Parts: sequence; C-alpha cells; structure tokens
Amino acid sequence: MRILVVNVNTTQAMTEGIVCQARQVAAEHTEIIGRTPTFGAESVEGNLESYLAAVAVLDAVKSYQEPFDAVIQAGYGEHGREGLQELLDVPVVDITEAAAATAMYLGHRYSVVTTLDRTVPLIEDRLLLAGLDRRCASVRSSGMAVLELETEPERAVAAIVEQAQAAVHEDRAEVIVLGCGGMAELEARVRERTGVPVVDGVAAAVTVAESLVRLGLTTSKVRTYAPPRPKKLTGWPLTNSGEE
Amino acid sequence: MRILVVNVNTTQAMTEGIVCQARQVAAEHTEIIGRTPTFGAESVEGNLESYLAAVAVLDAVKSYQEPFDAVIQAGYGEHGREGLQELLDVPVVDITEAAAATAMYLGHRYSVVTTLDRTVPLIEDRLLLAGLDRRCASVRSSGMAVLELETEPERAVAAIVEQAQAAVHEDRAEVIVLGCGGMAELEARVRERTGVPVVDGVAAAVTVAESLVRLGLTTSKVRTYAPPRPKKLTGWPLTNSGEE
Amino acid sequence: MRILVVNVNTTQAMTEGIVCQARQVAAEHTEIIGRTPTFGAESVEGNLESYLAAVAVLDAVKSYQEPFDAVIQAGYGEHGREGLQELLDVPVVDITEAAAATAMYLGHRYSVVTTLDRTVPLIEDRLLLAGLDRRCASVRSSGMAVLELETEPERAVAAIVEQAQAAVHEDRAEVIVLGCGGMAELEARVRERTGVPVVDGVAAAVTVAESLVRLGLTTSKVRTYAPPRPKKLTGWPLTNSGEE
Amino acid sequence: MRILVVNVNTTQAMTEGIVCQARQVAAEHTEIIGRTPTFGAESVEGNLESYLAAVAVLDAVKSYQEPFDAVIQAGYGEHGREGLQELLDVPVVDITEAAAATAMYLGHRYSVVTTLDRTVPLIEDRLLLAGLDRRCASVRSSGMAVLELETEPERAVAAIVEQAQAAVHEDRAEVIVLGCGGMAELEARVRERTGVPVVDGVAAAVTVAESLVRLGLTTSKVRTYAPPRPKKLTGWPLTNSGEE
Amino acid sequence: MRILVVNVNTTQAMTEGIVCQARQVAAEHTEIIGRTPTFGAESVEGNLESYLAAVAVLDAVKSYQEPFDAVIQAGYGEHGREGLQELLDVPVVDITEAAAATAMYLGHRYSVVTTLDRTVPLIEDRLLLAGLDRRCASVRSSGMAVLELETEPERAVAAIVEQAQAAVHEDRAEVIVLGCGGMAELEARVRERTGVPVVDGVAAAVTVAESLVRLGLTTSKVRTYAPPRPKKLTGWPLTNSGEE
Amino acid sequence: MRILVVNVNTTQAMTEGIVCQARQVAAEHTEIIGRTPTFGAESVEGNLESYLAAVAVLDAVKSYQEPFDAVIQAGYGEHGREGLQELLDVPVVDITEAAAATAMYLGHRYSVVTTLDRTVPLIEDRLLLAGLDRRCASVRSSGMAVLELETEPERAVAAIVEQAQAAVHEDRAEVIVLGCGGMAELEARVRERTGVPVVDGVAAAVTVAESLVRLGLTTSKVRTYAPPRPKKLTGWPLTNSGEE
Repeated sequence: MRILVVNVNTTQAMTEGIVCQARQVAAEHTEIIGRTPTFGAESVEGNLESYLAAVAVLDAVKSYQEPFDAVIQAGYGEHGREGLQELLDVPVVDITEAAAATAMYLGHRYSVVTTLDRTVPLIEDRLLLAGLDRRCASVRSSGMAVLELETEPERAVAAIVEQAQAAVHEDRAEVIVLGCGGMAELEARVRERTGVPVVDGVAAAVTVAESLVRLGLTTSKVRTYAPPRPKKLTGWPLTNSGEE
Repeated sequence: MRILVVNVNTTQAMTEGIVCQARQVAAEHTEIIGRTPTFGAESVEGNLESYLAAVAVLDAVKSYQEPFDAVIQAGYGEHGREGLQELLDVPVVDITEAAAATAMYLGHRYSVVTTLDRTVPLIEDRLLLAGLDRRCASVRSSGMAVLELETEPERAVAAIVEQAQAAVHEDRAEVIVLGCGGMAELEARVRERTGVPVVDGVAAAVTVAESLVRLGLTTSKVRTYAPPRPKKLTGWPLTNSGEE
Repeated sequence: MRILVVNVNTTQAMTEGIVCQARQVAAEHTEIIGRTPTFGAESVEGNLESYLAAVAVLDAVKSYQEPFDAVIQAGYGEHGREGLQELLDVPVVDITEAAAATAMYLGHRYSVVTTLDRTVPLIEDRLLLAGLDRRCASVRSSGMAVLELETEPERAVAAIVEQAQAAVHEDRAEVIVLGCGGMAELEARVRERTGVPVVDGVAAAVTVAESLVRLGLTTSKVRTYAPPRPKKLTGWPLTNSGEE
Repeated sequence: MRILVVNVNTTQAMTEGIVCQARQVAAEHTEIIGRTPTFGAESVEGNLESYLAAVAVLDAVKSYQEPFDAVIQAGYGEHGREGLQELLDVPVVDITEAAAATAMYLGHRYSVVTTLDRTVPLIEDRLLLAGLDRRCASVRSSGMAVLELETEPERAVAAIVEQAQAAVHEDRAEVIVLGCGGMAELEARVRERTGVPVVDGVAAAVTVAESLVRLGLTTSKVRTYAPPRPKKLTGWPLTNSGEE
Repeated sequence: MRILVVNVNTTQAMTEGIVCQARQVAAEHTEIIGRTPTFGAESVEGNLESYLAAVAVLDAVKSYQEPFDAVIQAGYGEHGREGLQELLDVPVVDITEAAAATAMYLGHRYSVVTTLDRTVPLIEDRLLLAGLDRRCASVRSSGMAVLELETEPERAVAAIVEQAQAAVHEDRAEVIVLGCGGMAELEARVRERTGVPVVDGVAAAVTVAESLVRLGLTTSKVRTYAPPRPKKLTGWPLTNSGEE
Repeated sequence: MRILVVNVNTTQAMTEGIVCQARQVAAEHTEIIGRTPTFGAESVEGNLESYLAAVAVLDAVKSYQEPFDAVIQAGYGEHGREGLQELLDVPVVDITEAAAATAMYLGHRYSVVTTLDRTVPLIEDRLLLAGLDRRCASVRSSGMAVLELETEPERAVAAIVEQAQAAVHEDRAEVIVLGCGGMAELEARVRERTGVPVVDGVAAAVTVAESLVRLGLTTSKVRTYAPPRPKKLTGWPLTNSGEE
C-alpha cells in the first residue's frame, strides 16, 4: 500500500519530519511517500496561506505520476480536503479530522492545543464543518509559531504542556490532540505531564488511511465529491507535469 | 494482537457470523476472539434488551481470563460502551461509532439502515451522545427483525436496498451504514444497487481497534472512565469466573 | 394512588431516606412504596455501576407483585429509564429529568450540583438525551462521594453551597438542582445561602408522577417504548419471583 | 390553593371552556379562577395579537385583587410569560411549555397540532426559547381558525386527527400535543384515532402549577425575573383597579 | 426616503439622541423621523417593560399618519418586531438584529456589551430567535442602568470599556456591539481602547433599512407576517388617531 | 466610493453581467469595478474549482493597483472570503452571506435555490460556517449548470421557479435567495410566481458593502483576520503585477 503524505507548506524539512512520524506508525507493507508543495508559504498560519495551501496540495498530488492508494493532507486546520476528494478515486484523510475522530474513542471530550492564537478559529471552523466539534472541549493556542516548534523546542514543550494541563483541568478535556503537523515529537512529554492520552494527527491519519484501503472503501462519488465536470481551466495545474 | 469481539445477544451463531466478518478484515497477526453473553436476549431489539446486553457484555468480558489488547462491542445502537471503558485498560470500540466515524471520511452525509422501526431512536440516541449525529442524514428501518436477516435473506436484501436508495435520493446520504451486526453479508449487494460506499460496523471497528492498539492509545482515565471505586457489589459479576 | 420509588443502589438506608423525602411531598392519598435492588453497587458513581443499576431497577420493579400506578427511578443521572418504559404500562419518571423540567419553570437557566467529578459527564449525557440540556448552565461537582453525604453532612453542605454559589454567580444559573438522590435534606440550607430556588429530584418526580396519573397519561407504545417482543431470555429476571 | 387561569383573548366563552377543562383535572382543594382580558383580540392568531395579549394578560392579573397561589397563561404559543414572572411572586405556568414538558415524559418525540398555518412559527419560537424544541418532531397546522373549533367541531376533529396521524407516521411523533387552548375537548377522539397519548396544555398546566405550589417553589428573582425597577410608567396598568 | 425610528420608551430626550445618531449615518435624501411612545416605561430594562414597549411601539407606528418607507425599532433586545412586520407593508428593522448581522461581516465572533445584568438573557433570547446567536461570543453587562448612561457618562465609559476588553481577551470576541440604543456616543472611545470595530445598532439599522428600500424588498406576507385577520379588537389602538 | 466586484470564474461575460446587476442597485456616487480572475475555471461548480477560485480571487484583488473601498466576492457558496479579509484593510462581503442576512430581515425562514445538486453541500457548509444556517429552510438545486442559465434561460426559469415554489410550500420558506451570481435577471419572475420576496446576492452585497463603508467599519484585525505574517511565499501572487 502506498500512501501520499502531503505537507501543506513549502518547507522540505517539515515534510521529512512528517514522513518520519508517519513511517513510525505505518504497517509493515505500507510505503509512505512525502510530497512538498512548490507553491505557497513556508509555514501556514492563517486563512490566506491556508487557501494557497489548498491549491498547492491539489497541485502536489496532481503532479505526482505514480500510483498510490490514499492521500493524507498533513496540515492541521487547513482548507482543501474537499477538493482532493473530488480529484481522486482513492481515500483522502485530513489530519485534523483523523485526530479528532481518534480522540473521541478515548475520552468524553478532547481539546486541541495548537500554535498561534490566530489559527484557533480555523481549527474550530474545520471541526464544525466535519461535524466533530460537539465533543471538543476547547481549542487552545500555545502562542508558538509553527517554525518556532523547531527552533525553540524547550519553550514549545513548556507552552504546550501548560495549555494541555489547562484544557484537562479547566475545560474538562480527557484527551489532548496536538494541533499542528510539527508537534508529533512532543507527544510523549505532553502525555507524561498531563496523564491523558495524546493524539498526533499524522499518526492517526496513517492508521485511518490504511484502514479505509483495507476495507476497500473510498470517497462517495454521487454528489458532493463527484469528479469535476469537464470544462476550460486556466493556469491549472500550476505545475506542468506533462501528463495533462 | 488479540481483540475480543463481543456479541450483545446469546445467539452463538450470530457470534460466529460476526467473528467471521471480523477475521476477513483483520490484519495478519490479529487474533479475533468471539464472546457470547450467557445472559440476556437471543436478539436485541429495544431498550430493555439493550440494557440487559450492557451488563451481559460487561460480564462476558470480565469473565474472560486471557489477556487481550482491545474489545469491540458488536451490537449496533446498544447501551454499555461506557461501562466497558471504566472496566478495562485497553481500548473499547463500539461498532455504532466506528461505522459512523468511518462513513464520515467518505461523504458529506451518511444514513444508517437498520432492522426494526423501534430501534431507530436507540441508534439516534447513541449517535447523539457520541457527537457523530450532525452529518447523519437519516436512520431508516427496513422492517426486518434481527433474526429474519438469517431466515429471510432475500426479503432482507430487498428491504434494505430499498431504504438505502431512499436515503441516497430523498435524504441526500452519500454513504450507507449497515445498522446491525448481522448485516455484513449484504454489503456488496447494497453497494451495487446504490452506487455509494457501504460501511459495516464490525469491519470498521476491527480496523479502529487495531489502529488504537498500534498507536499505543487507550481510554483516558482522568474522569469519566476512571476505574470504578472499590465498593460492595451484590450479584456481580454474574458469572463466577473464579478470578474475583 | 401507589407509586413505586426505586433506589438505584443496594443501600437500604438510602431507600428509606428517599421514601421519607417522597412522602413529605406526596398528596394525601398517594402511597409511596420504596424498592431496593438486590443487585449492583451500594452506591452508584459511574457508568459501570449505573449500567448494573439499570438492570437492578428493572429487576426490582419486575419482581414487585402488587399493582402500582407509576414508577420513579430515584438515581440522579443513571441509565435505565427507557427500559422501564418498555416494561411497564404505567408512567415512569426519572428524577434527573423531573428536576430539570421543574427547574426550567423557575428561571432562565439552572445548574446541577452533584457528587463526584466523574459523574458530571453522565448527568450531562442524560440531560442531552432528554432534550433538557439547553437551559442547563452547568453541572458542577462538590467532590463528595454519595455515602459521604451521610457520614460528613457538614462538609457536604459547605461543598455543595460553594458550588451552588459559583453556579449562580459565574455560570449565571438562576435555579439549583440537587444532583443526587441523597441530597434532599440540604435543600433548605442551599436555598438560604444562594437565594435561588432549589429543586430536589425525588420531590419533583413525585409530583410529576402524580400529575401524569391524574391526567390519565402513560407512556406511548407506538415505537420506542413498545413492549419487548416475545423472545428467549437467559438469566432474566434476576430474581425468580415465581411470576414468570 | 387558588390558581388564576388567564385567557389570552377577550372571548368570555373561551375562558369558561378553559376553566371547565382546568377544573376537571384540578385537585380537590384547588380553586380555579378564570380571568378574561379586557384588552386585545377576540382570538389570538398571530404576532400582533399575541403582543397585545401579553399586555392584556399582565393587566388581567395585575387588576385581580384577591390572593392567589399560581397563574396559568392559557394561550398556546403566545408572548408574555416572562413579564408575568417579573410581576409576580407566585409560580407562572405557560400552557405551551407545560404541554411540551409533559409530553416529553411519555415518548421519544412529540408533535404539536395547532390551528392556522401562520401560528406554527410562533409556537416553534416559544419552544425554542423554552429549550423544549429538540424532541419536538413537528408543529403542524390543521388549517382551522381558533373560533372555528367551536363553530365547526366535526370538521375540526377531522382536520386535527389527520394532522396527528401524519405526525405519528411521517414525522415519527410518539405523543401529540393539542396546540390551542380551545382544543381540549378533542383529546379523547384524537387519542382513539392515533393510538398515542394526547396532551392538553391547560390540563397539564394545572398539574404543574399545583406541583410547584406544593413543592414550595417559585420563580427565581436573582436576575431575569427580578421585580421591575421602580420607574415612571405611562398608561399602565391599563385598568385602573384602584390599587396603584 | 422616510424612515421612522421608534424609541421603545417614553423619554423624549432619548428619542432625540437616537434620531441624532440616525441622521449622522443616513444617506443624503433619507429623512429620519423619530417617534416616542405615549405608553410604557421611561426606560426599558426587563421583560415586563419590554412587553409594554412592544405594544407601545406598535401604537406609535400605527398612530403616525404620514407615509414612510421603513421602520426601525430602536430598543436593544426588546420584544415586538414580529408584530410590526404583520402590521406594515414596509420593511421593519430591529437594532438588535441589524447590529449583530453587521458585526458578523467584520470578525469571527462578536460580543454585546449592554446595561444591567438582568437584560442579558433578553438579548440572548432575541439573538437565539433571530438565528444570529452562534457567532455571539458573549453578552456582557456593564452594570449601568439605561438612564445612568446620560447622568454618569464617565463611569459608563469606564464600565463599558472594561467589559469590552474582557470580551475581546477572555471571550475571544473580535467585534463589539453596543447593546443599548443610548450608547452610540461611546462608540469611538470603546474602539480606541479595544482596537476592534464597534457597532452601534441604530447606525447599523439605518443602513439596513435604506438598503432594503433601495433593493425594493419588504416583509414576506405568505405566512408568519401575513396581515392580522379582521377581527374584533378591544382597546386597540391605544391612541385614537382618528384614522380607524 | 469604489467597490471591486470580483467574479469567481474566468468568464468575462459573467463578470459583465454581475457588474451590470451591481450598478443597478449601487448608490449614485458608488463606482462598481468588475474583476475577472485570470486563473481557474470558466464556471465554478464544485470544491476543486471553488478552491482554485479562492486563490484566483485573492490574485485578482491583489493585482489591482488602484484604491478601492470594499470588495465583493461574487460567487455563491465559494471558498476564499476569509483570505481576502486577511489581505485587505477594507470590508469584504461574500454574496452568499449578504443574501442570507438580507433574507433574514424579510421572513421567518428562507430557502436558497441554486444550480447543480453537487453545489448544495458547499452552500450548506458556507451558511453553517457563517452562522446563518438556522433559519435556512432548505438549499434546493434546479439542476441547471451555471453556463446553462445563459444558454437556456426559459428552461432555467421554469426549473428555478419550480424549486422556489416547493421551498415555499413544502419547506415553509418565506423568502427565496437566488443561489448563483448569474441568476439575478430571474428575480422578478421568481417573485411573481411565488409571491415571496426574492433576494439576489450581488445586489444585496452592494448595499452591505456601501453600508459598511458609510459606517466606517472594516474587518477586525485582532485575531482571525490579522494580516498574514511576513514569510517566504513561492509562486504567489500568481500575477506579477509589478507591485511586489
């Protein structure tokens, strides 16, 4: 089984981190293939960048010419999953949703701890649309920018743990979701300090994608995610892959 | 990995059917162990029987003395999952929830097609509590009793297909969930006749349980699902397994 | 008129307390009959015990052989009411719901103050299912175990009053519901210290049960609460009352 | 115990019908006192008339100079209950809410059958505000005007039964609420033809008011329903009762 | 274009303030005409007064004998708008709704800062009914009475700014709505101190009313807001304008 | 005042139609400037095309070098509005939201009639996110593709009128919203045949944009719509306008 794991930003090092995380949980015969967009922002922390990412991810998948069995969109709280579902015949898994659905098996309510305050409403919006919001106790920001997770890991751990503890004690969360593709390495430390299960979206999404493939399930094509109708497109795909 | 799949009724043949279905999707090294309650109804089709089943399933798990890695409660729309989560340290997966969460990856809305009309509100209640109701287009009954699925398979297929088609065309469902542990064999035929993905709860639950085990995740113990406090219990467990 | 008031735990002294409370508000010609389960936990403080209680209450009612006009399930936030509604032809009243519906006549929002933190989600779930949650400002725990209400009454009063005051001032509740069958005696003191109406579930349920009987109303039998279908049951009823 | 039952329109004959209905269910020592507004419409079938009724009912209560223990506002779906709660120290019961809360003890979902189509949204709005809407399957209109219930009883029964049956079979209601103060006499016939419990608001409200009085409960005065602040009022009360 | 701006209380000075505010934003050819009720309270701060205001506003509009193109009901959180919609053929705009809908164009969530604590639930109820509540982060009270806004302007500014800041930082509001017709003058100062857009309801309503008139849109008359049916009314209209 | 009206597709003729519609309702001194994307689909009828449109609209606005006072995104149900709000200091109005908010002033519930069945869920999602969904009675599709509105006007009118009538009679809508930028010309005919107010999104959005500008209100910049943080972007903007 081959799963494309698509980063939402142009930072190759982050793709590598995500792929590494995905491989740790992937089943023996699952091949994880990372894709980095060639369009958009080096990190995605807001709506404008997230909309660029939506198109960038579509492009990164469309320009990939080998066969694959599923796609994971590895940005937390980003736009674009519905477009991939129209484009593809194979299952598409968004880490925001995989993490939330996984957390809901583990406790009565879950909280998300994310990066900057400005991304909180984006995540709330995605969970609302996905119908996974009602058992979300809170979405909390650590105040850390995406790239600071790499450059200031100690401060990041402290800030994230602090918010996770507040979520458990004040918001009554029983599970913590790490709300950023780049937070996977913090999982063990957050779990130790809070005593609750901690869900990383990339890891959760890998198991969901594998499960859908094994069950022979793919996106419904009867209405919302039917293939795009044939029509004139300008400037798309961004990358001329020679296949069009 | 060893997964207990617990039937909610006392009909051994149904346990075998469920186990068979589970084994078809289980990973290579997953061992599926069926458990049949020694208490309660031969089929569960209402609240009273479902409450008996809740206790019966707790008992069937508690009296099992070998180690295991996860438990699947294999009754659609039944009570009891929260009790298992308190009792156990390993993950617990309800097929009602696994099916709904799986369906939500595949289409904008899903419908459940179940057995008797009287079980529709039970399923609606479970989905509401699970926070998985908002993208549920409808829960429809085929009018078939649980045991009739075995004795009148042709009529069952016709009745279920009819409701599935109505769900897709009238209720705007894009995915169908088979709302009974005993419907798994109908999956292919319903898919053919409706053209939409069809999710069987037992199959979905097996992949969810395997995923949670592989991710090292288990039920949060900080509040709702903390172990029962030590106290005097009368008549429990029902089955004296010699282990108490 | 004869009303069965069924305790959810096996502690006879608590049944007596509940019966005493019920008799204080019962109408002149109403006979209150207490029932104590012979199965389950000495106090119910979590899901597993609550599921045992659901079956224990069904059994305590089923094994009672005299006629009666209504049943009150006297456990706050417990499972099982729907099963009784299937079993019986007479009205069934859950104290959780009677208290909430009563509180809603008295103020814009109400809060529940209950025992342990772990029971809060059970109560929230029951109110959600009952459709009585939207005007619930909060469910707060006093941190007192059920049996401590008897053994440490002074500390219990202090803890409950503190939470009730927080509910009024911070959560904007205008009515307090005492969220445990054993809290009835605290009613006057909580009212004095908070200045808001205080509703005890047992008392509220007695007047609701009497009202339904007087109005000639009983549970609808057309769908959800139709009598169980005839089928083979094993080990049920728990108590061989000689009537089966 | 003395309960004021206040009609919302100026038709004295309707007050008498309501009082008659109330007396049939009132307890032995309960005195039912009817009040007819001297202001507003002969029947209330829309928002403008309902707002007049809100003030008319306030006036009809304010100008009553004997003591009383509770007030019932006997218009289905009308404005004004919150004003009475500010004005009075005794409990106030709206028949819309009493009927809905009573119906919720009897089945999984209830429907309201009312008079004209234009009053449906008013009833929906009142149930939404009261937090009693989630288990409401539908509000259906019979197309009969309020005064036609008296003048064309046979056509009224037929129209109401037809809608009640549609509610049970199409909307999955398990209980019917008669959505007009003047429909009480139809109760038995609707029950016979639908096979489900039928709730009349006036009857339900009498038992609720009696219950609140017996429980010693009255409206919370801490915030929403605190007495009006002393201030200059012009033209109020409408009726100079000599008491101001 | 002529727009009636109707005050909800009998204080002429407040009508003048509201008219002044309306004229500041009105388009060049828009004529703003103030109306002061001759019935009801000098300031509206609760349900009873708000119900009087509903009728008073209806009367103030009905007794106006010149033509006009739209009506603004200039009380924040008051009853009565639906009655005006039945009465009139021209558009009716409630400042509560105009302010909320305007705020929703400007940020992810908005908060309302109002006068007394007791009016908070009224505003919450109006927003709920209007279907404009989901993006409302909070309704907060400044503790200032309506008339104190005039008599103690400095204390009012301080109290309102404090609550607005709390709304932005604690409740995550991104826009502030001034929840009282008499707060318009505070707009600039609240904006300066919070850094977020501040919406005044009267100003917002003027532009909405002008927009509806220019678009040729008026209230739908097919159901809820159809003209009242002809029937006998007593004591209405309050003011004999000679036109009936 | 200068308002940019941005088409979401690359069809210049549609931009002209939209601009024409906008100018008919614009105030005397309002200048309407049309923008046609140079990227994406000739018509937008699904998620993939809608995500391309989101970026295309951002680009069409970013590459415009003259000053302007507000932006209207003239695609019904499309992605992208939040990105514009981050990018700009002036107000941004989405026609989906302007139409819904306008319709809510006119009736108790509104329905949207749109083009293809597959776009219904997109519109439902946008209304849900905007918090404008609760008074939406239904979103109905006419089965007409966007470009067919031009090529088959008679069939389009018939199909849209049919759905509008069904919305009024079956879904109880009291107002119809035309759910496509290209439907404006049908407004009068739909109104005539249904008897209810009909709202066109472009027209509504023009008056909303003018209103926000006149009120001096613009997007809140404190959190969700703060300007994008400075960072490395690749391939953006699509169009090298020379201004970067």
